[in-house]
Amino acid sequence: MGLFSKDIKSMEDLFLHTLQDVYYAENQIVKSLPKMIEKATNRELASGLRNHLAETENQVSRLEQVFEAIGETPRGTDCPAMDGLLKEADNVAGEVDDKKVLDAAIIGSAQAIEHYEISRYGTLIAWAEELGHDNVIRFLKANLKEEKAADKKLNTLAEAKLNRKATGTRLTPVSPSRSGPERQREKSPSRPPRDAEVPGCAVRTGVDLKVHALFLECAHRWNRMPSAKLRNKAQ
Amino acid sequence: MGLFSKDIKSMEDLFLHTLQDVYYAENQIVKSLPKMIEKATNRELASGLRNHLAETENQVSRLEQVFEAIGETPRGTDCPAMDGLLKEADNVAGEVDDKKVLDAAIIGSAQAIEHYEISRYGTLIAWAEELGHDNVIRFLKANLKEEKAADKKLNTLAEAKLNRKATGTRLTPVSPSRSGPERQREKSPSRPPRDAEVPGCAVRTGVDLKVHALFLECAHRWNRMPSAKLRNKAQ
Repeated sequence: MGLFSKDIKSMEDLFLHTLQDVYYAENQIVKSLPKMIEKATNRELASGLRNHLAETENQVSRLEQVFEAIGETPRGTDCPAMDGLLKEADNVAGEVDDKKVLDAAIIGSAQAIEHYEISRYGTLIAWAEELGHDNVIRFLKANLKEEKAADKKLNTLAEAKLNRKATGTRLTPVSPSRSGPERQREKSPSRPPRDAEVPGCAVRTGVDLKVHALFLECAHRWNRMPSAKLRNKAQ
Repeated sequence: MGLFSKDIKSMEDLFLHTLQDVYYAENQIVKSLPKMIEKATNRELASGLRNHLAETENQVSRLEQVFEAIGETPRGTDCPAMDGLLKEADNVAGEVDDKKVLDAAIIGSAQAIEHYEISRYGTLIAWAEELGHDNVIRFLKANLKEEKAADKKLNTLAEAKLNRKATGTRLTPVSPSRSGPERQREKSPSRPPRDAEVPGCAVRTGVDLKVHALFLECAHRWNRMPSAKLRNKAQ
């Protein structure tokens, strides 16, 4: 799209522009992830990022199939948002002077990147549906599903291990015989559970696990609904 | 934090740095929203953005209370991510040559911005919990809740009206007496439902409403669990 010209004249143009924006963004992530992997010291984090690099390469291919399906040649357009997100990730990592804190910082930055993509794919899917581009929705949904899963994995890793390692929080249960500063760093059993709706802030407490089980039940019941046949047929 | 120095030596430093990042980001949004409001042509969109401007000013105040609670002076730090997101919003808006398409573009950009904030507040809440900063969590959660609500409102507005106006999609029910191009732009009843989990892509189909009812049932059952007493007591 040209500078100082008004090249976006329709929703089709806006859809294409945003597709090019995401295509550029995914390609930049493919270039940047190896640096993040190199900086990560936790083996599970490095391995998770490596898996996501392979996924991102597949996502680029899916986007190329979207371009093809709408009769366009794959190409990127400037995406100052992704440039900024990657610059911020790089700046923060460069300022951290402790390996475990660096792992926590990498996870925070990676989740900010995932959320940008989640938002963009959500928007693209909505527009594709309105424009009647039913033949591209499955590619966009596959990418969205992977971004959400990657965000959740980072979350689980952060909550389960890395934040705790970085802060030095103890995991032993609270005992009435211990008190004072030693107890201050322990998790209180009466702490309210984290909001289960929000990617980026789900924690695996006992209550959350019960909610998770109920959601699984919901999903199971949803799949057994008569309308599921229609849905599965359409997908 | 200084350039080329490693000023983040602990999780406390990382928490403070990210708090400063979000403080800068919210202040930049306060400066940028009036421009977005001016560009929006749909009255509901403009009114929604105006409400969010007032909310964002409150969010800045809450962040100042967080700084105060941890004994720090409120100040921002460079946030290339938010700079990039706002630059992208501005660039895209400058390229759109149709008022209705511009409204859809503004919503897409605003949702990308909301998602950045959702991710940052999720991270800050997780770190505050690990660091034992229990006295700041309610401020951060209040901001997170507002960001999520703003994202949902934008979503509803886009799905209900603006995308449809921008693409020219008709809303009349499919009738066997109509066929061809007239039907092509109408929503197909066999279209798969949008993923209900993702802010940015929820649509109110019949199947979605059933899932929504099941989620409500989950929430009801969760509230009736024995652990709910403990949770409600702690809140």
